[in-house]
Amino acid sequence: MKLLEERIKKDGEVLDGDVLKINSFLNHQVDPKLMMQCGEEFKRLFKDEKIDKVLTCEASGIAPAIMAAYQLGVPMVFARKKKPSTLNDAVYWADVFSYTKKVNNKICVEEKFLHKSEHLLIIDDFVAHGEAVKGMVNIAKQAGCDIVGVGAIVAKTFQGGSEWVENEGLRFEALAKIDSFKNGQVHFEGEE
Amino acid sequence: MKLLEERIKKDGEVLDGDVLKINSFLNHQVDPKLMMQCGEEFKRLFKDEKIDKVLTCEASGIAPAIMAAYQLGVPMVFARKKKPSTLNDAVYWADVFSYTKKVNNKICVEEKFLHKSEHLLIIDDFVAHGEAVKGMVNIAKQAGCDIVGVGAIVAKTFQGGSEWVENEGLRFEALAKIDSFKNGQVHFEGEE
Repeated sequence: MKLLEERIKKDGEVLDGDVLKINSFLNHQVDPKLMMQCGEEFKRLFKDEKIDKVLTCEASGIAPAIMAAYQLGVPMVFARKKKPSTLNDAVYWADVFSYTKKVNNKICVEEKFLHKSEHLLIIDDFVAHGEAVKGMVNIAKQAGCDIVGVGAIVAKTFQGGSEWVENEGLRFEALAKIDSFKNGQVHFEGEE
Repeated sequence: MKLLEERIKKDGEVLDGDVLKINSFLNHQVDPKLMMQCGEEFKRLFKDEKIDKVLTCEASGIAPAIMAAYQLGVPMVFARKKKPSTLNDAVYWADVFSYTKKVNNKICVEEKFLHKSEHLLIIDDFVAHGEAVKGMVNIAKQAGCDIVGVGAIVAKTFQGGSEWVENEGLRFEALAKIDSFKNGQVHFEGEE
């Protein structure tokens, strides 16, 4: 998605260790119009698929996922990182390893919001090692959902997450695919 | 907002201790169309105000806030509950007391996303005691923002949060105002 790539070049910050920070329009401050355009793009990409629900993970996944769900006309569920005090019902749990903090965190989804054979589109803001996606795929499988695919706003395709999804036999779509960093600059797949 | 009140009556769960759980369309599973309608309603309510930015708090505030921001044509910023590892810049901090867990948590917003005299609309999903709102107002004041008002999807007006906002001299709007619970049922302000 050209518009998104241009925005990343303009406003993304490349930090040490191949870390891209997109705080000004995705991960802290969010551009709602751009999120809606991303939602439209996910709808276009998955137009031939039946989709019943969008699954994402709090917190940064919520904005793109709600727009994708809005475009698709289906509910969105976000996996929680803590079990809220009002969440007393049965939940699916999965571990999510954090590379930055070197610890396993847990995410959960209440069982009643994921149904057997439901057609699920998994959306995440950022797929690098893909740990959050692995956790969501784990939960979707526990629920017996039919995973239609995984959509990311940005993927760092050289860190294994996108490859893992494809090795699972799942369709992977990222609206911006970063294949390397060169001299502190982002390099997108297919770029000169 | 009649549509929202009807949905709360239909799908909300009243738990012990005047706790309303709205997991099926707001706090865990989210209805994107309803969130967009709430965004439209906030736009209508604040149509005579200049608004530059929407501020909310992760995670459940994000879906209604991004829709309000979309309708208003402005960016949305969500306060974070943990400082992410990529957040190295200066931040505003505020304490948020959790009534359910009896502890102080912290929220933060990167300083560069809130500017002096910026016209800010604060959006939250749920205002009961109003602790998250107090934290956001605190941060907005640290940044010298001009707070246009506070908008909530649901307020429990008998638990002090909405009163606190008004005592601060700020406009408070909730799309559904619960003034009591009777026999395990929600009672809205103005209802028979």
